[in-house]
Formats: sequence, structure tokens, C-alpha cells
Amino acid sequence: MAGQIEAKLIELGIVLPAPTAPVANYVPFVIAGDLVVISGQLPMLDGKVAWTGKVGGTMSVEEAAKACRQSFINLLVHLKVAAGDLDRVVQVVRLGGFIASGPDFTQHAVAMNGASNLSVEVFGERGRHARTTIGVSSLPLDAAVEVEGMFRIA
Amino acid sequence: MAGQIEAKLIELGIVLPAPTAPVANYVPFVIAGDLVVISGQLPMLDGKVAWTGKVGGTMSVEEAAKACRQSFINLLVHLKVAAGDLDRVVQVVRLGGFIASGPDFTQHAVAMNGASNLSVEVFGERGRHARTTIGVSSLPLDAAVEVEGMFRIA
Amino acid sequence: MAGQIEAKLIELGIVLPAPTAPVANYVPFVIAGDLVVISGQLPMLDGKVAWTGKVGGTMSVEEAAKACRQSFINLLVHLKVAAGDLDRVVQVVRLGGFIASGPDFTQHAVAMNGASNLSVEVFGERGRHARTTIGVSSLPLDAAVEVEGMFRIA
Repeated sequence: MAGQIEAKLIELGIVLPAPTAPVANYVPFVIAGDLVVISGQLPMLDGKVAWTGKVGGTMSVEEAAKACRQSFINLLVHLKVAAGDLDRVVQVVRLGGFIASGPDFTQHAVAMNGASNLSVEVFGERGRHARTTIGVSSLPLDAAVEVEGMFRIA
Repeated sequence: MAGQIEAKLIELGIVLPAPTAPVANYVPFVIAGDLVVISGQLPMLDGKVAWTGKVGGTMSVEEAAKACRQSFINLLVHLKVAAGDLDRVVQVVRLGGFIASGPDFTQHAVAMNGASNLSVEVFGERGRHARTTIGVSSLPLDAAVEVEGMFRIA
Repeated sequence: MAGQIEAKLIELGIVLPAPTAPVANYVPFVIAGDLVVISGQLPMLDGKVAWTGKVGGTMSVEEAAKACRQSFINLLVHLKVAAGDLDRVVQVVRLGGFIASGPDFTQHAVAMNGASNLSVEVFGERGRHARTTIGVSSLPLDAAVEVEGMFRIA
């Protein structure tokens, strides 16, 4: 029987893909006490980086928000493995958002809301998190965004 | 009666403004066990970003240090809410400093000292922290700097 | 008598230099519970930043991997002081990798593997970590890379 969070994902039409291995010599997550620290997630979809380029340049901020949403879905994939059951997630502690962009970009918050909004949609009050969002000169594999996360589990 | 840290702030002539809401769908801080994780703070003053542009370009490193100091004051605003009383702060664990700057900038440490020095002025030995400072291509709302923090409370 | 990890370092031909003070008003590490949070480390060697410039520009990704490896060695220097004995390290929890690079750089993961591979060589399974790697516009003292770390000790 699906848990409450799984039911919420179904309601949102979100199907978590199978976990994929990181692109290098590290692991998707580490559990330290009741904290789950998850590696930075690129906006992978169907096995490839689906949003590339620079936000505010070749990519609109609306598209970047979708990319951040996808990166958060990829965090959920690993969080589910870490927690066993997403209902065990007590709190989304912190999200870090990295937006590949040039010096003139200013709408980082709008882009990162793609991840933050989904966090609250999925987890409700427990989904409200501390957040740091910055603009970066480039990201692995030319990804347009990257999102990392720290979560607390029961 | 003001606590010791509040007294120190008064001595330094620092008046903490009222807490303001984040610019997007997240919260200013999350408490996880005895850790307080606070969202990245822009150098807001009187309701607006008071230091904009690129450090080493349109802004001097001395001004950037003032901006980092202001960002740390904004961390204190939320830390006070989280801890109830700033005297309960056991340790400033980590500060992350983000300096909007071009490829030729090298004085990130000087800029970030604006935050680090104030941390030690306010909290003494408990204010000595681990720190990571990097240069970033751009920041939300064209802010010149952003500072995030992790703190331990009793 | 050297511990197991010290023996491993000797086997790898790695001599940990004496700890050096940070370049500004902060400390190399903070212990919070069983977590050790270590400040971002530049690729210092013999008292100076040995890898400068931009990766993908004036520096090859192979050289950047060596720089990340050196930054990880510098994390070990402080971790040893924090833990007393490196054998007390239970887990490398998270590494953050910052690669100074222009907008066209895409091989961040290859560079950061210089740190990640050494982590696994030194600590084995305990060395497998969560990781976030991003490209940044500039770093302190024109360093080509910077690596920060969070570790769990017994």
C-alpha cells in the first residue's frame, strides 16, 4: 500500500524513475544520524541532462524553474531509497540551488521556486526549508541548474 | 532584561530589524536537533538590497566587507527568532560566503571578513567558525554578496 | 604506532603537512556533535596556492584533478587535528567542490574526482560521500579549485 507521500506524488502525476548512479566516484546520499545528505542533482530526465545552457541566456527563467523541479524529483528518488519510505521524512532541512547564469541574471529565486514549490506540494509544512540560491558560471555536463538537499528522517 | 549577546549588540550599535519573509517559497531557518540552518541572506537594509553589482568591478572590496557584515546581521535576526535568546547560541558552526565577482577577483577573504569579524565581535570564541568563500557569477536581485550560516544552540 | 589510515597514507606516499592557519578570521574546523565541518581548502602546497587560474582555460582538467586531490589532502590535515586519530573517522559525509571556470566548462566531475578518488583510496567504503560540484567565476587568491568537507567521527 502506498504511503501518504507516495499517494501525493501520484496525485501530482509524478512517477519517480529508478535511481541512477552518480556520474563519478561518489554516492547519491549519506545518512548521518537522522540527517540525509543528498548529492547535487542535475535536471536528468530519461537518462540525460534535459535542461542545458545558461539561464537568462539561451534558457528562460520559466524553463529553469521546470529544471529545478526536475532536480528536486531526482532528490526524491534518492531520498526514498535513503528513508525506505518517504513518509519517514520529518523535515526538508535545506535546499541549495545553483543556477548557471551570466553576470546580468537576477531572477534566481524564481527559478529555484520550481524546486521549493514542489517540496511544499509534496510534503506540506514539513516541506518548508532553509534555502541558499546562487548563480554559477558553469555546471557539470552543461546543466542549467543543480539542486542539493539535506533532509531529516524519523 | 537584555542577555549578554543582546548587550554586546547594543555596545556595537547594532539594532536588529524585524524579521522579514524570504523572497520566495521557503522559510528563514530550520532547526534540526541542536543545529539551526539559516537561509542565505542578502545584504538587505531598510527593506531593500543595499549593495548591488559586482565586487572588484563597480564595488570595492571594502564596501563588499560592509555588505557581508550586513548579511551577517540579517542572519542574527533569524537566529534570534530560532534560538529565542541569542545567549543560547553555543557555536557559530559554519558560514558560507558568496561574492558576486568576475574572473579576475581574488580578495574574497577580505570581503567575507566583514561577516567573520562581526561573528567574533558578537559571540567571542563561540563566534569562530568554519568557512567557505567562493566567487559567483551572479546573485538574486543583483546582490553583491550573500552569506548563509549554520549554528548550534543549547 | 601509526593507525590504519595513517598507514594507508604512508602507502600512498602522502605526507600530511603541518596544519596552517586560515587566511582570515575563522578556524579550520568546528566540531558539532559527531560532525566535523571543515573550512573550504585551497590547493595549498608548501605554503602557497600551487594551482591558479581557470580550469578549461589556462589549466587542464587533469591538472585540476591534481589540485582537488591536494585540497582533499589539506582537508585531511585538519581532520586529523579534529579527530585526534584518523581511524576515528566513521564516514566522509559530504564534499563540496568548487571549480573556477568559464561558461563553456563541462568536466567538473572529472576534476572533482581527484578529491573523491583519494577519499575512497584512503578511507575505503567509509570514504564514499555525497557530493556537490559547481563551476564558479573566481576563487580566493586566484585558486583554480576549492574543496570543503563534512565528516562523521566516532
